[in-house]
Amino acid sequence: MNVELKEGERIDDLQRNGLKIIQDPGRFCFGMDAVLLSGFATDAGAPTPRSAMKGARLLDMGTGTGILPILLSAKTKASELVGLEIQEESAEMASRSVMLNDLAPRVKIIQGDIKEAGSLFGAASFDVVTCNPPYMTGGHGIINKDAPKTIARHELLCSFDDVARNAAYVLKEKGRFMLVHRPFRLAEIIVTLSRYKLEVKRMQLVYPFIDHEPNMVLIEAVKGGKARMTVQKPLVVYEKPGVYTPEIYDIYGY
Amino acid sequence: MNVELKEGERIDDLQRNGLKIIQDPGRFCFGMDAVLLSGFATDAGAPTPRSAMKGARLLDMGTGTGILPILLSAKTKASELVGLEIQEESAEMASRSVMLNDLAPRVKIIQGDIKEAGSLFGAASFDVVTCNPPYMTGGHGIINKDAPKTIARHELLCSFDDVARNAAYVLKEKGRFMLVHRPFRLAEIIVTLSRYKLEVKRMQLVYPFIDHEPNMVLIEAVKGGKARMTVQKPLVVYEKPGVYTPEIYDIYGY
Repeated sequence: MNVELKEGERIDDLQRNGLKIIQDPGRFCFGMDAVLLSGFATDAGAPTPRSAMKGARLLDMGTGTGILPILLSAKTKASELVGLEIQEESAEMASRSVMLNDLAPRVKIIQGDIKEAGSLFGAASFDVVTCNPPYMTGGHGIINKDAPKTIARHELLCSFDDVARNAAYVLKEKGRFMLVHRPFRLAEIIVTLSRYKLEVKRMQLVYPFIDHEPNMVLIEAVKGGKARMTVQKPLVVYEKPGVYTPEIYDIYGY
Repeated sequence: MNVELKEGERIDDLQRNGLKIIQDPGRFCFGMDAVLLSGFATDAGAPTPRSAMKGARLLDMGTGTGILPILLSAKTKASELVGLEIQEESAEMASRSVMLNDLAPRVKIIQGDIKEAGSLFGAASFDVVTCNPPYMTGGHGIINKDAPKTIARHELLCSFDDVARNAAYVLKEKGRFMLVHRPFRLAEIIVTLSRYKLEVKRMQLVYPFIDHEPNMVLIEAVKGGKARMTVQKPLVVYEKPGVYTPEIYDIYGY
């Protein structure tokens, strides 16, 4: 289906099943973190192999461009993939990406606030929740608090506690919450998830190079799960400057 | 100083400053985890470089052979290093290792229970606490519950909650708790530490090979610390089967 582009927008090829996505570099473009989360959520190499989420209802909280539900529509057999996005222009653009790929009604974009996910969708209404939340706490020293990039990166409109509380509420018992975040907040994230009975079951650290500190952490928590987890082998991004490792090419689908 | 050996005991060279240790393979020998914890506790490559603990009082909870206070006597400038060990025979053997190395009175071995560390030493009495605790929960199916190896490996005489509670009690404000544990319990460990205001500030995962899951995790928590942590670069043990990486040779002091 053809859709109209607004000024500043472009169409990018997702290198998977012919999928495309509309982005506006002046607003916010998806990053490697979203792609790695789509890989982690469907990781066939995980200790408990990921199901294809056959028939599952999936919610992506703070979906931005819609990258996660669009990628996961190809990577899973989920029956319904809902992207929740608070920013009106982003939600509208993501909806056009859904049309562009003829993914409606399996993929839906809904404009709304993560803090109201509970009342929007009701308790225990999803099998899987994904989230690539803002990483930075507070908003000290930020000049343009309304800029789309600022809202995507800083916890101005919701805290991680809001994210965890709402994910736990909309998840069914034993439902899975999968997220990507920054390692410097790992302890706080685990404690917050635990507060809402989201038990961390799987974790993978992403290292830019094998001799560097990790810059991302991928986490799977199970609602009401038992206390025992797996830390997976390191996910290393670059073999050498400019050259991805085979794992990264594999996740990107090249 | 010469000391007497009992049947089954041997003297091992620690490859550092001429230090030696008495061990009985029929009871329990220290493992790589204790050596890696001694390296982590004094890591000059950490984001906040480790001080030499000049003048510090250090407590090692569940010291076994006394390996940690003996190694750390050479690696730090701590003024006093106390090893607490519940098993009478182990504590007595560790005391002979202290004599063998002429380390008294700077290094002391005290026989006692981790669960009573608070009343033994009093509140806020140490700058640093280290611990290489039993890794396994419960004791189902264990036949010989009195065997020294069983007590060292299974949480029969104390739980991780006991360890964290007592470490927090005997530590001064901003004092540091450093431990080694198994990654499968990482989430539970972080939540338990948080319960006693021990904020995780630094973590390093130990991978046997770079493409394997990690089998140890090293953690530093600060009593009353602020929420922001560093995950360090991976610590990889083997370059190829039978050949350690340079980092491991460095920690062992070869």
